[in-house]
Amino acid sequence: MVPHLITALTGPINELEARVLDSMPAIERWLRLEWMEHTPPFYASVDLRNAGFKLAPVDTDLFPRGFNHLTEEMLPLAVQAAMAAIEKICPEAKNLLIVPQDDDGPFHAEHLERLVRIFTMAGLNVRLGSLDPSLATPRRIALPGGGALAVEPLVRSRRRLGLKDFDPCTILLNHDLAGGTPKLLEGLHEQYLLPPLHAGWVVRRKSRHFQSYEEVAKKFAKLLGMDPWLITPMSGGTVRLAADDRRGLESLKAAADALLARLRRKHKEYGIADKPFVVVKADDGSRGAGVVSLRDAAELDSGGRWAASPLAAGEEVRELLVQEGVATNERINDAVAEPVVCTMDRYVIGGYYRVHAGRRADENLSSPGSTFVPLAFAPSHQLPRPGVAPGASPPNRFYMYGVIGRLAMLAAAYELEATDPEAEHYD
Amino acid sequence: MVPHLITALTGPINELEARVLDSMPAIERWLRLEWMEHTPPFYASVDLRNAGFKLAPVDTDLFPRGFNHLTEEMLPLAVQAAMAAIEKICPEAKNLLIVPQDDDGPFHAEHLERLVRIFTMAGLNVRLGSLDPSLATPRRIALPGGGALAVEPLVRSRRRLGLKDFDPCTILLNHDLAGGTPKLLEGLHEQYLLPPLHAGWVVRRKSRHFQSYEEVAKKFAKLLGMDPWLITPMSGGTVRLAADDRRGLESLKAAADALLARLRRKHKEYGIADKPFVVVKADDGSRGAGVVSLRDAAELDSGGRWAASPLAAGEEVRELLVQEGVATNERINDAVAEPVVCTMDRYVIGGYYRVHAGRRADENLSSPGSTFVPLAFAPSHQLPRPGVAPGASPPNRFYMYGVIGRLAMLAAAYELEATDPEAEHYD
Repeated sequence: MVPHLITALTGPINELEARVLDSMPAIERWLRLEWMEHTPPFYASVDLRNAGFKLAPVDTDLFPRGFNHLTEEMLPLAVQAAMAAIEKICPEAKNLLIVPQDDDGPFHAEHLERLVRIFTMAGLNVRLGSLDPSLATPRRIALPGGGALAVEPLVRSRRRLGLKDFDPCTILLNHDLAGGTPKLLEGLHEQYLLPPLHAGWVVRRKSRHFQSYEEVAKKFAKLLGMDPWLITPMSGGTVRLAADDRRGLESLKAAADALLARLRRKHKEYGIADKPFVVVKADDGSRGAGVVSLRDAAELDSGGRWAASPLAAGEEVRELLVQEGVATNERINDAVAEPVVCTMDRYVIGGYYRVHAGRRADENLSSPGSTFVPLAFAPSHQLPRPGVAPGASPPNRFYMYGVIGRLAMLAAAYELEATDPEAEHYD
Repeated sequence: MVPHLITALTGPINELEARVLDSMPAIERWLRLEWMEHTPPFYASVDLRNAGFKLAPVDTDLFPRGFNHLTEEMLPLAVQAAMAAIEKICPEAKNLLIVPQDDDGPFHAEHLERLVRIFTMAGLNVRLGSLDPSLATPRRIALPGGGALAVEPLVRSRRRLGLKDFDPCTILLNHDLAGGTPKLLEGLHEQYLLPPLHAGWVVRRKSRHFQSYEEVAKKFAKLLGMDPWLITPMSGGTVRLAADDRRGLESLKAAADALLARLRRKHKEYGIADKPFVVVKADDGSRGAGVVSLRDAAELDSGGRWAASPLAAGEEVRELLVQEGVATNERINDAVAEPVVCTMDRYVIGGYYRVHAGRRADENLSSPGSTFVPLAFAPSHQLPRPGVAPGASPPNRFYMYGVIGRLAMLAAAYELEATDPEAEHYD
């Protein structure tokens, strides 16, 4: 089930969308069976791009940071999902420690306030603890609407992590660990650490995630009798690139060229007029600035914008993922927009649009200057009613986004199983 | 968690409500632990009455029939709860058969359409089957908004129940079985029958339910450090009454007198100016017409309205429950109103008001002439925000109703465990 939210999409429903809408009970049952065998990531946000002829996830964040963009009306869904998640993991839970990113911006403060509220309403005492080792006394983060949150110094004992006078049974990471896994978080075998440490960007690789996604998408496409490419960004593999590395650059060009050739064949097969493009992005993180779109591998020679971006300042070497680019067809007030689907446990709890007025439809929107538009529930007269004449009720267009978002979440479940360092002992 | 709905209540928050609101995390955790040991009834609707000084459930329906009074915005909560319930009971479920009450009225049709929609969105193929043995071909029930539902004849094989070309793994009863348990539903050991047959009014007794409720309320009151009477209708026991039964009537008067005396002491203890009253209702069903309010047992002698009501026409004998009457303080447009809380699995999925313009605050509203007012989600600027100065955000007044509604649902869980005919073999 996916809440009925109003999307910016107004065009006619294409074949893919119609098939997804018609197959709702079969899809929900299939997902139910998958969740019997795989544990969903505790929470996630999935960036989607809808090119019209295809719809695909382009980024799956296991430490979502945009819950402030969900409307207040969606909170009960989030709380209900949180209750279901806690009930399964640790029903006797009393105290929850949230470890957030070190970011005191007003949007982040609102996001944290949301997280605190959701888990408080789910029946937990919630406090915030910072990974910043220089923090000696609680830091106050002002909330834009008034009030404040306190982020406290973490207190580590030999076996447990907590705060002063606060011993949690569950620790919720809302920090992507891109800078490495802190010692503070290691060896916590007595407490539930969610998501697990290997969901952090020290371990995670986008290529590994999309490999799992391809597996999920193939199963799903078989269920619906369709080509999995319609929901999958095609992969061109990864390339290792060092600074001033001519051989690496040649490999990258070759990978991009090969993928572009495959995509041109696909576009021809489907009669798609749009020229295909590929994106090159860092395999080990979500640093959006590094994402580059290419319509021709020769663009790599021309230097310019590209020359500076694949490696961050001071970086020696980087693994890059070459992937099919998916354009977004959605616009909000003429600005390019992409939907973001938020999940908790097995449930879609809401969504919002990431909007960037300064970017094109084939560019990455997760970059400075982007804004966010919460999606609202559809007003009641717009809800679908089975048994009512077709056309009498507009379909839930957000449903398809909720399905593809959950496929990406399921892929993350496969991925975390495959990369679990504890699981290796049993192979 | 309970959605934040707008109640009709506008008065100041009293001590009981303040205590419930302040104890939210502790209450939610306590309920979570109770659900670890007790299976919630599949769904329920609980009638509450708020007298200001006390709030108590007065009827717990295990075959709710008012889902049409939930707003469309609440559907996602219901669907998410349905998914959680199905996942626990029978995750591989594909087909769901709903067995409704034989009632073709427009409100009932809308209620059934809601049920069908909720379980379809949860990923099931849903069809309706009638217990009416005279039904030979599908019956069409027109929906007020256009379209129609089909109710089909049930097909019983030796071990299974279904419809023509429809073999469900789960059967959802939405029929209170007040007329007896049909043979059609007996011995279905291969399929899930929800709620179980002993939730029907052939087996259920209100006195048994409130006995379980007292047990639950005592535990809950201990948690909050308060008098359980503030959330419990005091019981005066049951009395067996036959037609023209002078001895039975004397017993009834004695029971009412004794309860009134206990209530007067309680009112004095709390300094409550309102005069207490008792209600007499059929112990074995929800026939609202039989509920009678008494401020003095002598009213039983005067005949009049009462003389006709405790026994229905042609009835020989009836078990009656004598219970403390709880007045309702709520008004919608000057008409007396009582809140109804709807639950599915462990979750509150919404609520509505039952309103009766022709009744007084101490009378039963579940009778001909009552109307229904859906409760809406509170607009976002009204949501409570922890950390914000007191008074800056109105509290969720519906929360207390959701808590007491869930206590009644928990009592139903205790009750169904105690009355389970299968469980007796293991005692």
